[in-house]
Amino acid sequence: MKAPKRIVVVGGVAAGMSAASQAKRRLPSATVTVFEKGPYISYGACGMPYNLEDPERDIEDLVVLSPEKARDDRGIDLHVRHEVTEVDLEGGQVVVRDLENGADRREPFDALVIATGARAVRIPLPGMDLPGVHVLRDLMDGAAIKRILSTGPRKAVVIGAGYIGMEMAHVLTARGLKVTVLEKLPQVIPGWCSETVAVVQEELERHGVDVRTGVTVTGAEAGPDGRVAAVATDAGNFEAELVILAVGVRPNVELAAAAGLRIGETGAIWVSQTQQTSHEAVWAAGDCAEAYHRILRRNAWIPLGTTANKQGRIAGANVVGAGQRFAGIVGTAGFQVFDLEVARSGIGEDQARQEGFDPVTVTIRQRSRAHGYPGGTPIKVTLVADGPTGLLLGGELVGPEGAALRSNILATALASHMTVADLQGLDLVYAPPFAPVWDPILVAANQLIKRVGRNGK
Amino acid sequence: MKAPKRIVVVGGVAAGMSAASQAKRRLPSATVTVFEKGPYISYGACGMPYNLEDPERDIEDLVVLSPEKARDDRGIDLHVRHEVTEVDLEGGQVVVRDLENGADRREPFDALVIATGARAVRIPLPGMDLPGVHVLRDLMDGAAIKRILSTGPRKAVVIGAGYIGMEMAHVLTARGLKVTVLEKLPQVIPGWCSETVAVVQEELERHGVDVRTGVTVTGAEAGPDGRVAAVATDAGNFEAELVILAVGVRPNVELAAAAGLRIGETGAIWVSQTQQTSHEAVWAAGDCAEAYHRILRRNAWIPLGTTANKQGRIAGANVVGAGQRFAGIVGTAGFQVFDLEVARSGIGEDQARQEGFDPVTVTIRQRSRAHGYPGGTPIKVTLVADGPTGLLLGGELVGPEGAALRSNILATALASHMTVADLQGLDLVYAPPFAPVWDPILVAANQLIKRVGRNGK
Repeated sequence: MKAPKRIVVVGGVAAGMSAASQAKRRLPSATVTVFEKGPYISYGACGMPYNLEDPERDIEDLVVLSPEKARDDRGIDLHVRHEVTEVDLEGGQVVVRDLENGADRREPFDALVIATGARAVRIPLPGMDLPGVHVLRDLMDGAAIKRILSTGPRKAVVIGAGYIGMEMAHVLTARGLKVTVLEKLPQVIPGWCSETVAVVQEELERHGVDVRTGVTVTGAEAGPDGRVAAVATDAGNFEAELVILAVGVRPNVELAAAAGLRIGETGAIWVSQTQQTSHEAVWAAGDCAEAYHRILRRNAWIPLGTTANKQGRIAGANVVGAGQRFAGIVGTAGFQVFDLEVARSGIGEDQARQEGFDPVTVTIRQRSRAHGYPGGTPIKVTLVADGPTGLLLGGELVGPEGAALRSNILATALASHMTVADLQGLDLVYAPPFAPVWDPILVAANQLIKRVGRNGK
Repeated sequence: MKAPKRIVVVGGVAAGMSAASQAKRRLPSATVTVFEKGPYISYGACGMPYNLEDPERDIEDLVVLSPEKARDDRGIDLHVRHEVTEVDLEGGQVVVRDLENGADRREPFDALVIATGARAVRIPLPGMDLPGVHVLRDLMDGAAIKRILSTGPRKAVVIGAGYIGMEMAHVLTARGLKVTVLEKLPQVIPGWCSETVAVVQEELERHGVDVRTGVTVTGAEAGPDGRVAAVATDAGNFEAELVILAVGVRPNVELAAAAGLRIGETGAIWVSQTQQTSHEAVWAAGDCAEAYHRILRRNAWIPLGTTANKQGRIAGANVVGAGQRFAGIVGTAGFQVFDLEVARSGIGEDQARQEGFDPVTVTIRQRSRAHGYPGGTPIKVTLVADGPTGLLLGGELVGPEGAALRSNILATALASHMTVADLQGLDLVYAPPFAPVWDPILVAANQLIKRVGRNGK
């Protein structure tokens, strides 16, 4: 492979800036150009809910790197408010529009990295474009919500009970609003097991959140001031001066698809484990791209900031010929809701069954600290394994402390394709302030081992 | 193997009670007899320092199971204050002394589990038997120290700067004493890397502990009341009304050795991974026994409560024919000292070199939570790998939060014999309250990968 002279990166948040920085560091002679549609680059989008909780903190605190610093310190040719509108693979050019003046120009590339991210789904229902109805996806969304919060609203509705919905229910309650969460499916955090769901639901209710599951939203209604005043559903109207739409995200693949790049079955841009797309001069990384899933042994689409950073780094290295491979994901994710840490890794029982496994599951409760040590709290652990083989497939943890970081044990075990017996044999840290003599993970493994077949023992 | 009718267990704390409970549960028809020399069984010895910190809590809070409950609920024939003084392997009998009346009797066994634990080293120096000089090993030691603390002593000397020394420096300071730590070696927590040591030393000093390393104790001196008043050293005298001797432990192997059982090179009772000793009817578990070390690929002696519980359970299962294997240890350990969590897994650079590896090491600092998330604190991570192969050998973590539980990532990775590249590829949990987008472990792996050979990449 010839070293590229001109590298173009589309998108300048997590994956894009990781790719650009890595490529420039490895090949300083190359021109690395980043086009970012928005006004900000390289910000911690996942930190937005937590930032919103604190009225004193500026939303721009989340920016890790300014365009100026990217240019001056990292030597990246950086352009914010520039949208790439077309990729011409034949000609090796992108068409880019300067959003300040609307002017289009063509930029040539030897290598291209697509890091266009994902966007929040907006339900096509009447009123969903009213002032006061917001998604939380980019920093401008965060800034807009923060402005509304500063006006002292009293009631909010959060539509959707996924991670963002949970975090926003927490944050808005902490900001003093009365919060209703509306979820179409019969449970909060769809896709998680009923044992975890029960703890999360109880925590929401304990903090005064009105949780309505199995409810279909039919629209939003304006008040006399033209701003949103209520959300209409098949279970009645819910008043709100602020509505958060948190019903999921979709990958931004239009640019890639129009250029003829392969779109995977997940709907995101297909990539190999080198982050290369179906075209040899084009790489993709982050929320717009698929990620290799080590349990499923095929590509999946689970957009998360940490994956975006890793994939971006690998894409940036490979653009200049490093030949790195992304090890893949195992489905690790976590969030905080009120006093609870909630985390998972791997796949759940339902998904395991869909994938052709014959899953067995246990749920246990164990304290986070040793017997007799003050301050311990219960952790609930659910583990899923393939019954006939004993292969560990995944697990969920929920509790006030020590739940999230323990999901890393599962993440590490899953990466090695451990069995339940392997998990049971781990030499985990023991000291009374940190763990009981039988760590919650080991207690769960000790139970699950009884339910797996001979091969798994 | 014929099912044993009479199972005798020597020792009733962690390993012994785990073995007895497991054997009885699996083979209720067997008579399972436990002889425990002391008055207590099944207590959380590791919790003693933390219990001592709280003047209001009774030391007996640490007892998990009373002799009565062991008898009534678990059907174990339990005898406290009974010391086994001889094992007659030929005759299949033990000689046991009732410490209440000094009477000896013989008890036959079909299978024997030795769980005699370890004892604290007492330095043979003048004055080390004075009132006020204590080791912290069993519950009676804890009770005695607690009584002294209730009299309001002002100054304490801790001899030895290992885990127990560190925990006691913390606890005694918290109880209002002025504490001096004396360590013969040139550093606190001998065996840990200098980067971790520096943070721990600073923490001790920040809390007013007088830390003296490279100091040799020559004896203890009595005051006019006949109780200890000072510790004499080659660097002068240090006043103390309470002296904690924390210079290490030795396995209680005398009973096993006298019976002709094989003692390993470590000085502890040799066992196979089934916990069987060199005699087919005798198993050993816990602090008196060796443990298979998965990195060293041979037996080691690292006495810890969690290993004792696991080995005891396996010994108890195997006594009745379960055929289980102890997966082994990887050297995971942790402790709290003041506001610091300190933990390790695997082997350090010096030991790696002694074992014939060609180690490379990195130390990094990273915050425990995401950029812009309040309350994060620095974690220092040191990782050691074999340079030529990239095989991960171990690591240490130190910091106010999130250090201890992250050692489980290393423990799990080491159990799978991961390389640094494998570690770098882990899908660890990311959410702003729990971790930065690049977890400290990944930041360290990203650095260490640069220092390992081609095979390790």
